Amino acid sequence: MTNVSIIGASGYSGIELIRILENHPHFHIKSLHSSSMSGHFIHEENPHLIHLNKELLPIDPVEIAKESKLVFLATPSGISTKLSPQCLAAGLKVIDLSGDLRLKDTEDYEKWYKKEAASQDILAQAIYGLSEWNEESIQNAEVIANPGCFPTAVLLGLAPIVKQRWIKPDSIIIDAKSGVSGAGRSALPTSMFSEVNENFKIYKVHAHQHIPEIEQQLHEWQADTGCIEFSTHLVPMTRGIMVTMYVQLTESIMTEQLIDLYKSSYEKKPFVRIQPKGQYPCTKQVSGSNYCDIAISVNERTRRVTIVSVIDNLVKGAAGQAVQNANLLYGYDEATGLGFVPQFP
Amino acid sequence: MTNVSIIGASGYSGIELIRILENHPHFHIKSLHSSSMSGHFIHEENPHLIHLNKELLPIDPVEIAKESKLVFLATPSGISTKLSPQCLAAGLKVIDLSGDLRLKDTEDYEKWYKKEAASQDILAQAIYGLSEWNEESIQNAEVIANPGCFPTAVLLGLAPIVKQRWIKPDSIIIDAKSGVSGAGRSALPTSMFSEVNENFKIYKVHAHQHIPEIEQQLHEWQADTGCIEFSTHLVPMTRGIMVTMYVQLTESIMTEQLIDLYKSSYEKKPFVRIQPKGQYPCTKQVSGSNYCDIAISVNERTRRVTIVSVIDNLVKGAAGQAVQNANLLYGYDEATGLGFVPQFP
Amino acid sequence: MTNVSIIGASGYSGIELIRILENHPHFHIKSLHSSSMSGHFIHEENPHLIHLNKELLPIDPVEIAKESKLVFLATPSGISTKLSPQCLAAGLKVIDLSGDLRLKDTEDYEKWYKKEAASQDILAQAIYGLSEWNEESIQNAEVIANPGCFPTAVLLGLAPIVKQRWIKPDSIIIDAKSGVSGAGRSALPTSMFSEVNENFKIYKVHAHQHIPEIEQQLHEWQADTGCIEFSTHLVPMTRGIMVTMYVQLTESIMTEQLIDLYKSSYEKKPFVRIQPKGQYPCTKQVSGSNYCDIAISVNERTRRVTIVSVIDNLVKGAAGQAVQNANLLYGYDEATGLGFVPQFP
Amino acid sequence: MTNVSIIGASGYSGIELIRILENHPHFHIKSLHSSSMSGHFIHEENPHLIHLNKELLPIDPVEIAKESKLVFLATPSGISTKLSPQCLAAGLKVIDLSGDLRLKDTEDYEKWYKKEAASQDILAQAIYGLSEWNEESIQNAEVIANPGCFPTAVLLGLAPIVKQRWIKPDSIIIDAKSGVSGAGRSALPTSMFSEVNENFKIYKVHAHQHIPEIEQQLHEWQADTGCIEFSTHLVPMTRGIMVTMYVQLTESIMTEQLIDLYKSSYEKKPFVRIQPKGQYPCTKQVSGSNYCDIAISVNERTRRVTIVSVIDNLVKGAAGQAVQNANLLYGYDEATGLGFVPQFP
Repeated sequence: MTNVSIIGASGYSGIELIRILENHPHFHIKSLHSSSMSGHFIHEENPHLIHLNKELLPIDPVEIAKESKLVFLATPSGISTKLSPQCLAAGLKVIDLSGDLRLKDTEDYEKWYKKEAASQDILAQAIYGLSEWNEESIQNAEVIANPGCFPTAVLLGLAPIVKQRWIKPDSIIIDAKSGVSGAGRSALPTSMFSEVNENFKIYKVHAHQHIPEIEQQLHEWQADTGCIEFSTHLVPMTRGIMVTMYVQLTESIMTEQLIDLYKSSYEKKPFVRIQPKGQYPCTKQVSGSNYCDIAISVNERTRRVTIVSVIDNLVKGAAGQAVQNANLLYGYDEATGLGFVPQFP
Repeated sequence: MTNVSIIGASGYSGIELIRILENHPHFHIKSLHSSSMSGHFIHEENPHLIHLNKELLPIDPVEIAKESKLVFLATPSGISTKLSPQCLAAGLKVIDLSGDLRLKDTEDYEKWYKKEAASQDILAQAIYGLSEWNEESIQNAEVIANPGCFPTAVLLGLAPIVKQRWIKPDSIIIDAKSGVSGAGRSALPTSMFSEVNENFKIYKVHAHQHIPEIEQQLHEWQADTGCIEFSTHLVPMTRGIMVTMYVQLTESIMTEQLIDLYKSSYEKKPFVRIQPKGQYPCTKQVSGSNYCDIAISVNERTRRVTIVSVIDNLVKGAAGQAVQNANLLYGYDEATGLGFVPQFP
Repeated sequence: MTNVSIIGASGYSGIELIRILENHPHFHIKSLHSSSMSGHFIHEENPHLIHLNKELLPIDPVEIAKESKLVFLATPSGISTKLSPQCLAAGLKVIDLSGDLRLKDTEDYEKWYKKEAASQDILAQAIYGLSEWNEESIQNAEVIANPGCFPTAVLLGLAPIVKQRWIKPDSIIIDAKSGVSGAGRSALPTSMFSEVNENFKIYKVHAHQHIPEIEQQLHEWQADTGCIEFSTHLVPMTRGIMVTMYVQLTESIMTEQLIDLYKSSYEKKPFVRIQPKGQYPCTKQVSGSNYCDIAISVNERTRRVTIVSVIDNLVKGAAGQAVQNANLLYGYDEATGLGFVPQFP
Repeated sequence: MTNVSIIGASGYSGIELIRILENHPHFHIKSLHSSSMSGHFIHEENPHLIHLNKELLPIDPVEIAKESKLVFLATPSGISTKLSPQCLAAGLKVIDLSGDLRLKDTEDYEKWYKKEAASQDILAQAIYGLSEWNEESIQNAEVIANPGCFPTAVLLGLAPIVKQRWIKPDSIIIDAKSGVSGAGRSALPTSMFSEVNENFKIYKVHAHQHIPEIEQQLHEWQADTGCIEFSTHLVPMTRGIMVTMYVQLTESIMTEQLIDLYKSSYEKKPFVRIQPKGQYPCTKQVSGSNYCDIAISVNERTRRVTIVSVIDNLVKGAAGQAVQNANLLYGYDEATGLGFVPQFP
């Protein structure tokens, strides 16, 4: 068993890491940490975890490193910029679930996040943990920048067609929808039940911090990709992301060809399930699981391609992919401890 | 037209008062007031009211009284204790939607509300505004203590059988369920969508501040009524209250007799609809309306009576009943401006 | 008072017509009709209407015409093809809420609806009831084809910019989201609570019957408009539609110019509320009301325009617009009886 | 590995059995069966199971017995009456999740279920599978009647105090609340999203078929237990049951004593978590898990006891307890394969 620790254990990503790791055959949760709740027990705000009877400890990388090998940072943005170098210095490996280490360009980070960026050093070292497409680098990483929830759904859905160079580089339109847990656990007026229930909102129009993260990876795959159109909506549900994407083809391609391309691209990837022709995924069919389900289809009338990609934002979009990356990092099968069947209904 | 003002206009009861009064034929909303949002427009936090284009003004009873006759206090508990005497002194009539003026016993108030009670003076003057049972006093009031949401559903459901002395005075068990809007508009962790959705909670067990309010009125109707058993639960929905009540009969009575009693008790009351035998109400059948729907039935196996009463907590349980009381106060038909058909689905 | 009748009174559009018309100062509901529920009372399946105590009658246009002047057809598609000519022949005016009379091209109807089309005669006579843009024809109509819910939100959102010829005619992408009530009241497996709740679905991809309806009207406004990209999603909520639309400009235009254009286009239209720059509507801000709220914005990075339009699908998208059209038809102010303030929260 | 089969695999209990058993270390799902869906693949109606790629087979006990040792009957009531004897005759062990084998008195069954009862033979053989209280009999059973969802929550919550004879035998009042999945997967009008959402209903008043099941077990524990008062409500959520129970004490007992009694009663039971004094469970804290969380408290004002018990109706109330019983039956630790941490939020 490899000992691991979780910092930011009482946030939604933190408790999801606990849910997953409690049943993992090779990782053992050695300690839970929180700045705001240190000294309290995890079950005080999380009564579903009462059987664990675990205290939240303060955040001290040197102490943590005495018992653990790997630390998950499930902290809000702006924390790991400083905390991740300290963890590395203490000898820990780091998987950071925040957005702090994802953007290589510090100006981009400061523009979109409105916070001070991490050092060039740590950014240069951080490996972008899109498990399906970055396996090798992840296996050798010291510090992993776990992808954002929207970027995971978007990039898994675009990768094959973009890498194949079948789409016009400035034609990508992404209409994204997320459950409310994506906004985290702070008690914001906009996250109140009475405001969200029976409501559908658009938010952060043209301003979501996941835009540069998606563009950075797309550029890596196809250098001439233009700016993406990216809108985010809040769905009155707790978990789940769907992205509906519209792209224009460079040549005449049929739905069947696209499905073949996607199936072969993800043939050996246990968590990507390409839907049969004519079937489209819903968010609930991946709920509680690490799956990303993708449908792709050519509109015969407009010749545009519609790509639909769904994930559970807290699993494949956060804690699940983090554990998948931890598996890769330690040489385990990437699916280890992640075999949850989706919870339906 | 009678000019009225609303203090606490940006809370849920406040905006519900606006919804109702905007279409009232005899009352005109002269001004909206708020301590926290004064200087802002009502639609900044309430985009559904953008067509009103109304500014929120500071709270100054003397200024208000220059234009308005009547003021609705839709403020949190602890405000009207001081504010209602000031309004009266300025020459305004007052309908207070908070709990501050409901309990005649100041010790009770301080025990259950954990706040300083209002003066004996104002409490002596305040009329309990249970419209269906207190019509005459309301018509002549200067200041009205508008009933709480749970007490409205409970008392309308119990009044006929209690006044008839058909139940054992210490046998009242009330299992109450409420939508989340009952908790008000403050951004509390417990009111977050992700915590409430797909969840059913019990809260304030044996400690809800509506207990003494209900007992006070029951005692008035039947002096030997004992302590009630009263539990409150949070339902993952925005609006609506159901109370399921269990009482023991003093003698053998049949369901039909009870329904007859209830029908005749509420014969001239436009907002109480007694359900036919064998039919039970759901909260949605009164949503957005001022109705209170009541079913009553004897369990043949246990000889206990089950009474089910539903209201929309923001209408009959707050703003609607307040307007009904305003109608009575000014000599209008009590249903004036309250003829909303419930919104279904 | 003008007597009116409702056919299909027990469906969601039918009971919404009842909700609205019960408080209308000039229309009186003379009779309710239903094929499936004839002989029953409306409140058997609609307990919120128990105070009406109204029987559902069979559908006989000649009988209806003895007392009523105008009939609302709130029937599923495939009924008014035959029923509307019968109503006209009996001397009734007709407002048809189904899709049967909207498409002028019978082949289009049969292709998208998979049903037999109405006669050319009745189609030629039917006026498309998009109240804000077709006022004059509606005033003189005998039979009105009330627009679909999605087309209403889409067309009100696109009209000014399309008529101004500021967009590339083949660049229209519409990502539409609807609450579940849009699917009607039949008990379908896909409309079950446990399947819909905590779920977000895409449906009828490239195949929704509202596509030709939208294109027909767009062509009328700008003859060279190409095929639209139109995707529909099911949101876990009962009421509400949002359409997020992405279009490309023909020239460089700023957000402010667009907002000015929209404000002046809808200056005299009481139910269209253009949002201030930087504000975007949510569905709940129009719930229960006849408003259509629209935001428009240029994405500085992509130069595409995003247009967001929200309505309550059962009000502005069905019963509300039908009553608005009835007002126009009888020469009343179009807002008569439709002054509902949105219900929030 | 022990081969098992599931009959009724496409219902909600069936797919929950699949979710659990897919990760069980000792049971292997050999085959899935369905009468209505035989010949189809399980993922046609359950796209979350697309990775299984399993066909639904017809129901033939002799065929099933060739490969499997144990069969789970996740069928609607009225099927196992005949099917379970056939399975036994074929040499299979049976765990029946329906209500058919629970009531020992056939008249009771026919009165409450309105269906023909099973034979006395099979009823005499069937062991009531309340895992925590019937361990020994379960270990030696051939056929197990898996308890109903409500009875599980009720009986685990009442067992210690009833067996201790601390309550008045005719004082039990149970106010039960359930999510919608408890009504099964048939497309009923009452289970439609638009009818259930933002709604709270009471149903089957004084008539729920779980009443005799609860009373039968209570009588076994304390022969003079009277008829229970039992009301069931529908909560607008998919999963979860809470029962709020009110009982009268025979003598003066304090909350602490009761908590001690409960803690010692369930000391060795991994799935019952007694809450600390002053804490009450919510349904979400057990969602997706096999836990039953119980709080108990004396109301100082009324001297009644309030007991609150929550479960996930599809896990501890159905599939989870069935697997727990299968573990007992085959001599495995009862928690094997059931270590799911609750999914929150």
